[in-house]
Amino acid sequence: MTGYGGNVLVRGGTLVLPEGLVKADVLVEDGVITAIGRGLSAQGVDERIDASGKLVLPGIIDEHVHMREPGLTYKDNFTNGTKAAAAGGVTTVLEMPNTLPPVDSRKAFEEKKALLEPKAYVDFGLYGVIHDSNADNFDELVHAGAVGFKIFMGPTTGNIPSPSDGTLYEILLKSAKYGVTLAFHAENWDLVKHFTSKIRSSGRSDPRAHLEARPVICEEEAIQKLILFSKKTGGRVHIVHMSAEEGVELLRQAIFEGLNVTGETCPHYLILTADDYSKYGNLMKVNPPVREKHHQDALWKAVREGVICALGSDHAPHTREEKLKEVWKASAGFTGVQTFLPLMLDQALRGKLPLTKIPELMSENPAKLFGMYPRKGTLRIGSDGDLVIVDPNSETVISEENLYAKHPVTPFIGWRLKGVVKYTILRGTIIAVDGKVVGEARGRWVSRIQVDN
Amino acid sequence: MTGYGGNVLVRGGTLVLPEGLVKADVLVEDGVITAIGRGLSAQGVDERIDASGKLVLPGIIDEHVHMREPGLTYKDNFTNGTKAAAAGGVTTVLEMPNTLPPVDSRKAFEEKKALLEPKAYVDFGLYGVIHDSNADNFDELVHAGAVGFKIFMGPTTGNIPSPSDGTLYEILLKSAKYGVTLAFHAENWDLVKHFTSKIRSSGRSDPRAHLEARPVICEEEAIQKLILFSKKTGGRVHIVHMSAEEGVELLRQAIFEGLNVTGETCPHYLILTADDYSKYGNLMKVNPPVREKHHQDALWKAVREGVICALGSDHAPHTREEKLKEVWKASAGFTGVQTFLPLMLDQALRGKLPLTKIPELMSENPAKLFGMYPRKGTLRIGSDGDLVIVDPNSETVISEENLYAKHPVTPFIGWRLKGVVKYTILRGTIIAVDGKVVGEARGRWVSRIQVDN
Amino acid sequence: MTGYGGNVLVRGGTLVLPEGLVKADVLVEDGVITAIGRGLSAQGVDERIDASGKLVLPGIIDEHVHMREPGLTYKDNFTNGTKAAAAGGVTTVLEMPNTLPPVDSRKAFEEKKALLEPKAYVDFGLYGVIHDSNADNFDELVHAGAVGFKIFMGPTTGNIPSPSDGTLYEILLKSAKYGVTLAFHAENWDLVKHFTSKIRSSGRSDPRAHLEARPVICEEEAIQKLILFSKKTGGRVHIVHMSAEEGVELLRQAIFEGLNVTGETCPHYLILTADDYSKYGNLMKVNPPVREKHHQDALWKAVREGVICALGSDHAPHTREEKLKEVWKASAGFTGVQTFLPLMLDQALRGKLPLTKIPELMSENPAKLFGMYPRKGTLRIGSDGDLVIVDPNSETVISEENLYAKHPVTPFIGWRLKGVVKYTILRGTIIAVDGKVVGEARGRWVSRIQVDN
Amino acid sequence: MTGYGGNVLVRGGTLVLPEGLVKADVLVEDGVITAIGRGLSAQGVDERIDASGKLVLPGIIDEHVHMREPGLTYKDNFTNGTKAAAAGGVTTVLEMPNTLPPVDSRKAFEEKKALLEPKAYVDFGLYGVIHDSNADNFDELVHAGAVGFKIFMGPTTGNIPSPSDGTLYEILLKSAKYGVTLAFHAENWDLVKHFTSKIRSSGRSDPRAHLEARPVICEEEAIQKLILFSKKTGGRVHIVHMSAEEGVELLRQAIFEGLNVTGETCPHYLILTADDYSKYGNLMKVNPPVREKHHQDALWKAVREGVICALGSDHAPHTREEKLKEVWKASAGFTGVQTFLPLMLDQALRGKLPLTKIPELMSENPAKLFGMYPRKGTLRIGSDGDLVIVDPNSETVISEENLYAKHPVTPFIGWRLKGVVKYTILRGTIIAVDGKVVGEARGRWVSRIQVDN
Repeated sequence: MTGYGGNVLVRGGTLVLPEGLVKADVLVEDGVITAIGRGLSAQGVDERIDASGKLVLPGIIDEHVHMREPGLTYKDNFTNGTKAAAAGGVTTVLEMPNTLPPVDSRKAFEEKKALLEPKAYVDFGLYGVIHDSNADNFDELVHAGAVGFKIFMGPTTGNIPSPSDGTLYEILLKSAKYGVTLAFHAENWDLVKHFTSKIRSSGRSDPRAHLEARPVICEEEAIQKLILFSKKTGGRVHIVHMSAEEGVELLRQAIFEGLNVTGETCPHYLILTADDYSKYGNLMKVNPPVREKHHQDALWKAVREGVICALGSDHAPHTREEKLKEVWKASAGFTGVQTFLPLMLDQALRGKLPLTKIPELMSENPAKLFGMYPRKGTLRIGSDGDLVIVDPNSETVISEENLYAKHPVTPFIGWRLKGVVKYTILRGTIIAVDGKVVGEARGRWVSRIQVDN
Repeated sequence: MTGYGGNVLVRGGTLVLPEGLVKADVLVEDGVITAIGRGLSAQGVDERIDASGKLVLPGIIDEHVHMREPGLTYKDNFTNGTKAAAAGGVTTVLEMPNTLPPVDSRKAFEEKKALLEPKAYVDFGLYGVIHDSNADNFDELVHAGAVGFKIFMGPTTGNIPSPSDGTLYEILLKSAKYGVTLAFHAENWDLVKHFTSKIRSSGRSDPRAHLEARPVICEEEAIQKLILFSKKTGGRVHIVHMSAEEGVELLRQAIFEGLNVTGETCPHYLILTADDYSKYGNLMKVNPPVREKHHQDALWKAVREGVICALGSDHAPHTREEKLKEVWKASAGFTGVQTFLPLMLDQALRGKLPLTKIPELMSENPAKLFGMYPRKGTLRIGSDGDLVIVDPNSETVISEENLYAKHPVTPFIGWRLKGVVKYTILRGTIIAVDGKVVGEARGRWVSRIQVDN
Repeated sequence: MTGYGGNVLVRGGTLVLPEGLVKADVLVEDGVITAIGRGLSAQGVDERIDASGKLVLPGIIDEHVHMREPGLTYKDNFTNGTKAAAAGGVTTVLEMPNTLPPVDSRKAFEEKKALLEPKAYVDFGLYGVIHDSNADNFDELVHAGAVGFKIFMGPTTGNIPSPSDGTLYEILLKSAKYGVTLAFHAENWDLVKHFTSKIRSSGRSDPRAHLEARPVICEEEAIQKLILFSKKTGGRVHIVHMSAEEGVELLRQAIFEGLNVTGETCPHYLILTADDYSKYGNLMKVNPPVREKHHQDALWKAVREGVICALGSDHAPHTREEKLKEVWKASAGFTGVQTFLPLMLDQALRGKLPLTKIPELMSENPAKLFGMYPRKGTLRIGSDGDLVIVDPNSETVISEENLYAKHPVTPFIGWRLKGVVKYTILRGTIIAVDGKVVGEARGRWVSRIQVDN
Repeated sequence: MTGYGGNVLVRGGTLVLPEGLVKADVLVEDGVITAIGRGLSAQGVDERIDASGKLVLPGIIDEHVHMREPGLTYKDNFTNGTKAAAAGGVTTVLEMPNTLPPVDSRKAFEEKKALLEPKAYVDFGLYGVIHDSNADNFDELVHAGAVGFKIFMGPTTGNIPSPSDGTLYEILLKSAKYGVTLAFHAENWDLVKHFTSKIRSSGRSDPRAHLEARPVICEEEAIQKLILFSKKTGGRVHIVHMSAEEGVELLRQAIFEGLNVTGETCPHYLILTADDYSKYGNLMKVNPPVREKHHQDALWKAVREGVICALGSDHAPHTREEKLKEVWKASAGFTGVQTFLPLMLDQALRGKLPLTKIPELMSENPAKLFGMYPRKGTLRIGSDGDLVIVDPNSETVISEENLYAKHPVTPFIGWRLKGVVKYTILRGTIIAVDGKVVGEARGRWVSRIQVDN
């Protein structure tokens, strides 16, 4: 026992793996999986969970969260955020760098890491950010252990400027050199401003006007540029929060050509459509916007086929007041890390997605993209004992009281979902039961590890 | 203990899985894997193997063998063939139907099964064959448990005629209905005859003339027709022994379009090139022929990328006399099941292929294609305990004395290869050690099982 | 005056050329165009036509007619057929070779030429035919002056067998060598037989059953094979009577790849759809069949874009009795040469097609494909003085009395069409006025000429 | 005789038309072609030219010239520029708008037109320019008769800023509305600056460093953006001075998809390669740069196939001093309008291009792109009598003395070329003979005319 984690034997459950379902016990010793099998002996293991009739998945990795600390803690903080994660079956979060100050140097990185680690209820990795004036810090951030970088093609919370094309080219060369993934917010900012001004000056102020202020060409232009740059440099381009059919088609073509280009989408693009603006108003305002039904259909197809290989929640909490302003002033995004697995589990149990896709999209692929595999993201001997145990036969209702968010504002309040997260286990220790966090903050910072391909 | 198989604990080895290498023990009880883990307890297990420093792979499935029994036993027989398989790390063979009589009815199927089962040293599945005059027997052969069907686009050993296009269409509809794979010898017979006659009448009789008698268009025309038919019917087309770049490109496009089309190639296409005709002469005559280097390069690329998803040996023994005739009369094909894994292992250990590709190409995907997964083809709880244990640090030399073939005639005699097959384990029982078969014929016939997608 | 043709000055008309409309006079001297301009002087020209308010087009070339002589004159004969051509604005016909005996040798070619020339009211070229047993006659037929060859992928009137793939390959090599066009009836005969037997045995006997007996795959398989063979050999493949969207897409891709592949369609595929079977019954039976509306839409698009570059009438007269049999016995095809231009002119004047496309599709491109350009197919100095003068502001009705066919049986009887063919001029001599033939048989046989590319 | 132009009869020449060569006389009366034919009568025509043994082409249109007036006349002026045009067989020039002041309003347009018309030795059209601050002037410039617009994706002579993406989108909508062509200098300015700074700071100062400062990605990124914008808006994008294979491939794909995208290249990209920097130094500095041989090969292929449909000279005179500075300060571009036809004629007579491509690329297509067809760009009845008569059997040498440029600085000085421009005829009047301008300035301003498609 070295103190890496706990011991637990999960018995009688059905493992949900990318390659299929299989009934087996899982033994975790000192935080690491040491055996998978039938009738494993429990000698010397204090904690046993009877998972009969339950599904056992690898712990969920949410590759895309904005926990808001430091600097924006009026929106939410890391303690709440990682408690929400634990309650929702997420055992690792990858935290975005657009906090205040932004994570744009080794110093800022180390300070954020030191600030957050004592508050972490789940394991976490940190992104760096690159813009024109800190491009030289790329290497030191890689060496500091950043899981990847976030690049904003347009300004964002925290006012991080977008890089010029020359800088973009150089950081993609660096990405290729280190094999490190760059996560792109791919919207052409000049076009966004243009169309926003056009629609706004036409007098529109209904929630759906936000959709028309960001037509598909904004995403498409940014994505096709990134694909070209990846082709020329070998850099690893990961397009996050994909929302549109045209983007999916560009991605599909890039994959077909063998480029290092991957894509992420989020539950809200798969579950909501433009028809919902009339119901949820600015609560569902998010960037890029939720679009018409045919875009959703294309995203589902891409997810099922593996063209989009990863999901993220884009957890982005704001205060209720910020969300309830009129459309042009309302903040974009909403809390998501706690409902991430429940929403997707519900979709799978309703038949929209094979269950086996959940560990692929929400554990294994994020771990691979951000240099944590096979330590994280899989149920195999020697991997971290991160597990989530789910009851597929019960139901749950999302309610404000059950959310750990400081401001529990999301369009999904009141939704009844199939499936219940029963246990969340982090490195062999139970950290949440039935949606309630148990025990102290045991989360650790996780570095990107280099894996030869 | 129900008699399904043996008990064995393999300790300390490195598992070679499609998803990576992992150090773990494997426990097999009554023929079935019951645990994978570190430090598994050996209670009640009589047989233990110390696999320290060794690689442990799922047993190899050779999806493409012609064991020649019944009817052609002067070439070889099932006893020899399955002993060769066991010695070479192959735990399941899928036997082609062009024996005498051909397997073209339920009656022929049952008779062949009954004839072979007592002689089997490894597990085996049986293909049926369809041509114009037995197309109505498709359903009864599926119900008899055929793993799939072989369709010859041109006549073959045993004089099975190729189906007309109308029949082809109907059996692809059946393939779609049952989800059963059709393995195609894809060469346009009329073109083969034409070019053969042309080159033959030009006076050529050197071994390489065989290559020029079957130019790429022969394969290409057949493959593009099959792809069109699959597109129209949904039928499962598996192109076996792919030899040419153009075929690979058609396959890649079909996969891109989401069609049910897959491809196999064989070690000889990956290891030999047209430059070798001067060295091996008609010994390396095979259909389709081994082609120029750029075709080999394209095949390797396709194998690495997953465009070609399976390997088969195309084990096709002949007498030495048949192989040594002049080029136009020499028999095509040669013994291959025993050298199947050793040749590919050598390639992997020399860096031509990631080791993890071996279980994917030679176990998991063949099992999936022919309805045996996850009973066969994978190391997971509940699967059959079929294992092969390999020493990556020793070398072996292929010699006539070590081959179990009645006529040990192959171009690979004398080749020194990296890696040695140490143990072959069939359902928990050791059936070969260091290339020597041990024990009796324990092989069983394996039926195709229906797996919901 | 050498006797090549007549003198005529056509004044005041609007020339309809592929590159646009232009008002100009045309002067023909001794059968050849010698000037195009405004206010041309009429010195020494006896015949003048005032074409004010009329359209002047190059004489139409019908690249696809079956005049039935010799051997099938109970259906129709060359005298009637070429009178019908003249009356309908067609100044050159290309006669198919499947008469009795078929045109499969130089001897048969010379005999047909000698038989037809005295009976010709318009100029004519002759196709040869190639099948397995006369492939050696390819060269002598080229040297005899055949405009091209017709290849039947399935048997046809006159029972010409389809060539084996080996023969096909060899004649495409010859096509490439001579630059001679091969016109293909592209239907997979084995599939046609299969589907016909299937639908027929289901008890169907309504006219539309013919459509279901020849599903698109029949055409598609044949076309994709021909494209592959053209790619490998450089041979010139012209797919005649294209009827289906899928074929158009294959053609589009082949053109994009720069292959020597071209396509023809016919007025009936552009004007009728499957909805018309209930109205016209077996009168509209033709091979390939008239298909559903979306195929028609795809054909129009291809014609407008130039993907399909030529039109032919597929003039194929039968007796009324032959057409009125039940669907499985009724003859396929109908008389078409006389209605060819009127039907397409009507479509153009209704806005379905730019007028300028008519000379491109029905004169210039057929002349280029079959080695007669720029002698035929264009209005330019030095070209044959073949003109057709049309009144765009009158209308005409197709009636049995006005057709020159022995058996005036066509679905278009009674149709009222925009536009009237006023004059047909062959090498400077007026050969028809207002739909009535004037003067004697002045037609000449036309040889294919070699044009360097 | 209305004063539109002169009368001339050109006899006995060979017309070089896009559709072929044909021997015929051409009669021009009052500036307009009134007859084309053999043995045309010369009644009432004072001027006759014997063109026996000569080639007669439509007058060349140079769609891409910078004549430098007003504001930059120290480089050159309109009088010299249009004399050079006349001497070189060019009868119409399209003048770029980046003079001082730039042509960015109706007022500037009218002033430039009034300034230039008295000085014009050939006919001319004027481009407007659009950037962020004058986008509202688009309509008034169209109504003023601009032939098209030039859009600079990066700053240029005269410091015209490049438009933001929002403006770009809006002007492409306008382009679609009016059917007006936008000519794009397609280089990503940010990337150009980045790579220039990188290579410059590496210490390079040899002429070829200019090539490395503008790698292909600069063009490629700009072109793919423009194609996307054209796809979304229907706007007419004409990519001028294409220099790279990758751009050609994007263009080819856009054309295949049926988009309104066209391309131009220039003689220097077709004739020079990167190997020539050692010979010509900064004399051949131009933007985009002349690139490696494989780019030249791709451009020739595109020109022959019609993927690139137009040529322009990119005539851009500078003083000798400006050209002879060190690489980072030397001006880009050189005088080109007088050598435009001679260089391309030489290429054609050496077999690099069919002669018939010259009128297509250098007359007909430019006229169509910029709204002047069929008044300009073709030899047909009713078109302007603009002709150039060429002797294919003589040779000429480019020399400083024979160039009309103020500063006759070009890499082509001293080149011996096949073919000599004998006569240039503008609307029926001879304006140059044997490379010498005759008579006064008769050029007229030409408006864009609207042609329905």
